[in-house]
Amino acid sequence: MQTAERFFCLEGIDGCGKSTQLKRLAEFLTGKGYDVLTIREPGGSEISESIRSLLLDIRYKGVMDSRTELLLYNAARAQVIAEKIAPALAAGKVVLADRFAWSTLAYQGYGREIDPQMVLNLSNITCGKFNPALTIVLDVSLEESRRRQAGENRVADRLESEAVSFFERVRNGYLKIAEVFPDCVNVVDANGDMDKIQDRIRDLILKRLA
Amino acid sequence: MQTAERFFCLEGIDGCGKSTQLKRLAEFLTGKGYDVLTIREPGGSEISESIRSLLLDIRYKGVMDSRTELLLYNAARAQVIAEKIAPALAAGKVVLADRFAWSTLAYQGYGREIDPQMVLNLSNITCGKFNPALTIVLDVSLEESRRRQAGENRVADRLESEAVSFFERVRNGYLKIAEVFPDCVNVVDANGDMDKIQDRIRDLILKRLA
Repeated sequence: MQTAERFFCLEGIDGCGKSTQLKRLAEFLTGKGYDVLTIREPGGSEISESIRSLLLDIRYKGVMDSRTELLLYNAARAQVIAEKIAPALAAGKVVLADRFAWSTLAYQGYGREIDPQMVLNLSNITCGKFNPALTIVLDVSLEESRRRQAGENRVADRLESEAVSFFERVRNGYLKIAEVFPDCVNVVDANGDMDKIQDRIRDLILKRLA
Repeated sequence: MQTAERFFCLEGIDGCGKSTQLKRLAEFLTGKGYDVLTIREPGGSEISESIRSLLLDIRYKGVMDSRTELLLYNAARAQVIAEKIAPALAAGKVVLADRFAWSTLAYQGYGREIDPQMVLNLSNITCGKFNPALTIVLDVSLEESRRRQAGENRVADRLESEAVSFFERVRNGYLKIAEVFPDCVNVVDANGDMDKIQDRIRDLILKRLA
């Protein structure tokens, strides 16, 4: 798999703490003098935003084919790469993504049980060389994930209202991905203390930036 | 390539006459006692319709990445297959499509010069076995195409306002496809008399239905 230097990603099931950790990581790297672009798909692209609103529309639950969903995630990603990620990396910035292509493999491939090899082939078409040099999977138990999300008191969107068995498959999918791609995917236990998790993330990223 | 019996398609550049010919073919086959479903993408699927309106939005000209466009066409197609084509074929209907996956190879692959093999790989992911048993390419000269469209007095949408050189590549792409896939793609000269072209189309389709 081709990857892009200075491109990093945090992944994991909802409630794993990645958005909070990514924000802290971005501040830390900025403080170290790096020019940082933080991306959360759809990443500020109007086109990708339009695609994402189709994907999350609760009216389409049960109507949208799983292959359609897969292709739409890839379309939104292709646009973010073209509009945001490729130009930022070309300008020497560090790009930090809150989820990227591994989410699609974990959620659509393992979660929805679409052939993982097909999902990966599609991802290679979409991303080309724009895969993160390192993705850190923040691994939490389903119980911890549910506990954290309940505390947030949010209305569940279509994806979040899926059955627990789905999220079990997604979590195990992430662990499998890290096994198969050890050079660019590492797992960090994210059940414990937030500060210690942040330290571990910083160590891994700084090693790659050195 | 896997194909589906009783699934047929007319293709060609705009102004080749395929919509008119398809309508007449549908009436003819219905008269012969066949149960016919005519599909023009997005094919009556609300989701595909939403995707298509993104694709044709003039505001996105020059902003939408060619890979995003490619993936969106495939997403809309996957949804039409799931909602309309697969159920119709399963019910024993004849399905007639006004454009299908070869359009994407001709327009995005050859027209926009995205690697044709990649476009074909993506199409295989999207369509699986739901490719037309026979596609008839109605081949007209660029001059004839322009002449017919001018007569229609329509406002050009984003795709139709492309340069002439683009349509030259598309037309040659269709001819190339027919060379590479002779078992499921035939070319019919569509510059001449409409009734004779319709007769030729009927002959080719009836042979496949026999």
